[in-house]
Amino acid sequence: MTPTIDDIHAAAERIAPFAHRTPVLTCSWIDRQAGAKCFFKCENFQKVGAFKFRGACNAVFSLSEADAKRGVVTHSSGNHAQALALAARLRGIPATIVMPTTAPAAKRAAVMEYGAKIVPCEPTVESRETTCRRVVEETGGTMIHPYNDARVIAGQGTAAMELLAQTPDLDVILTPVGGGGLASGTALAATALAPDCRVIGVEPSAADDARRSLAEGRIIPSNNPQTIADGLRTSLGELTFDILRRHAHAILAVSEEGIIHTMRHVWERMKIIIEPSSAVPVAALWEHRNEIPGQRVGIIISGGNLDLDGLPWRGPCSFVVNSRGPG
Amino acid sequence: MTPTIDDIHAAAERIAPFAHRTPVLTCSWIDRQAGAKCFFKCENFQKVGAFKFRGACNAVFSLSEADAKRGVVTHSSGNHAQALALAARLRGIPATIVMPTTAPAAKRAAVMEYGAKIVPCEPTVESRETTCRRVVEETGGTMIHPYNDARVIAGQGTAAMELLAQTPDLDVILTPVGGGGLASGTALAATALAPDCRVIGVEPSAADDARRSLAEGRIIPSNNPQTIADGLRTSLGELTFDILRRHAHAILAVSEEGIIHTMRHVWERMKIIIEPSSAVPVAALWEHRNEIPGQRVGIIISGGNLDLDGLPWRGPCSFVVNSRGPG
Repeated sequence: MTPTIDDIHAAAERIAPFAHRTPVLTCSWIDRQAGAKCFFKCENFQKVGAFKFRGACNAVFSLSEADAKRGVVTHSSGNHAQALALAARLRGIPATIVMPTTAPAAKRAAVMEYGAKIVPCEPTVESRETTCRRVVEETGGTMIHPYNDARVIAGQGTAAMELLAQTPDLDVILTPVGGGGLASGTALAATALAPDCRVIGVEPSAADDARRSLAEGRIIPSNNPQTIADGLRTSLGELTFDILRRHAHAILAVSEEGIIHTMRHVWERMKIIIEPSSAVPVAALWEHRNEIPGQRVGIIISGGNLDLDGLPWRGPCSFVVNSRGPG
Repeated sequence: MTPTIDDIHAAAERIAPFAHRTPVLTCSWIDRQAGAKCFFKCENFQKVGAFKFRGACNAVFSLSEADAKRGVVTHSSGNHAQALALAARLRGIPATIVMPTTAPAAKRAAVMEYGAKIVPCEPTVESRETTCRRVVEETGGTMIHPYNDARVIAGQGTAAMELLAQTPDLDVILTPVGGGGLASGTALAATALAPDCRVIGVEPSAADDARRSLAEGRIIPSNNPQTIADGLRTSLGELTFDILRRHAHAILAVSEEGIIHTMRHVWERMKIIIEPSSAVPVAALWEHRNEIPGQRVGIIISGGNLDLDGLPWRGPCSFVVNSRGPG
């Protein structure tokens, strides 16, 4: 079921004791490049280093006492895994994370640091889903999907709700789109709280399933997309597709080279560490300058988790954009 | 002449239209490591990426119209050069920066980007001072020393003034010490505004002139110190020595290895980019845990300017701490 603005308000109250009210930063250099005044909502400073904590925390603290006792379950090798692990620890309930055997050791360690149990699966959708179902059957726990879940979407919507309170009169909010949890929460919040503020989703051209899906009017998943923006490789779910179809004003796509360049510019000019997925909406400022309406642009910086030994602008890199690399 | 708290108040008002009121961030991981609640005043988000803008801006906007017209002069290859260049541009007056021929091209470019004129000198103290004197004679401009200047010190003191307003009841403030401008501004502000709050300066062991100078009761400069914390290689001046002697509660020194480790921890955990000098007071949290009194610790993060291609934890590095490098 689609969350309402009341659900987002309730989520904000529910997570307030645990989540950071993250700051909004500005950067005059980026403003000059973009030809607009930009306001960056820094969810890289959120607990676990990503907005994902908002949705996971709202979901965990929405559970009844009886359900909560049996714990929560999810599949993720990314920020949602850490977010759910921390939220469960804060409520004092068990969390089980189904994670492919191919997940990096650092990701496993981060989840275990928060006290969650990891159950390995094969790196296929089938194995992941079978394993999740088995864990839910065995534990009686509640599955908390990373994005296709109304409680999660309502939680993610609190980031835009805060941004709109911290920064009045935004003409548009740019948000990354992966599975669509953040984007649909943002669209719901803005529609209710600032009806004149447009919401534009941005995704990597190499994983532009949201753009294609909204254009065709049906979900067209990306098939093993090759993008450095690892948080945006997932495709829309039914719930997020439906919300974005009704409430997003546009979906834009940006190049891999633009993502890497932009990430470096943000590090250098803003002095904040952002992960590649966070650079995606920022890259739209230059790659789609004429398609971004208005003079006051909000941008949700989704997270700051990445391996500092694998920076894309030197040395070994998991994904190299043509042979030149960024300048 | 030592600035008063009124000078710091006046500086705050003078720079308010131009400087960022930087946010104060917290990090529960660091709190656990430190056994205290830590509050980070993020001057890496200040204009030009460093607290130096505060002092330079106050100095430039303190000048009479007649003096201002003839411009400002300084010697620096670091953050003060960019700070003075930007402050002068904001007032619409000329700035001349004397810079050694050995300064990296990136530093020269940054200063020129702000519209300042660069006059090269040999990389010696003599050449630097002779060149500065010549420029002052030729232009009639006003010399703005990077730290041994009451207007600059008053400006730097506004960072601690803001921190104390943003974060009540601090037991101690940790600040890096290089030439001592930030540390003495901090000590003056805290003495006046929060007399129970101690101020502790922290410097690299490899450039511990402040510790030695205060212990001996006379200025003992560091001689070509080898530390990665490039902002802290300078030694105290007469004015900053005198202020710290009267108002600082202690000077601590930290290891090079600690600086690099700490810098990486802050990047990873706080998602902010700090330069090595900024890691120095943070490193004191673990290297001098028992010497830091109280439960509420303010830390001034001085800046975030460094070359992203020369990170000390991989590849070429301008200064390598033993052969292992950080973990």
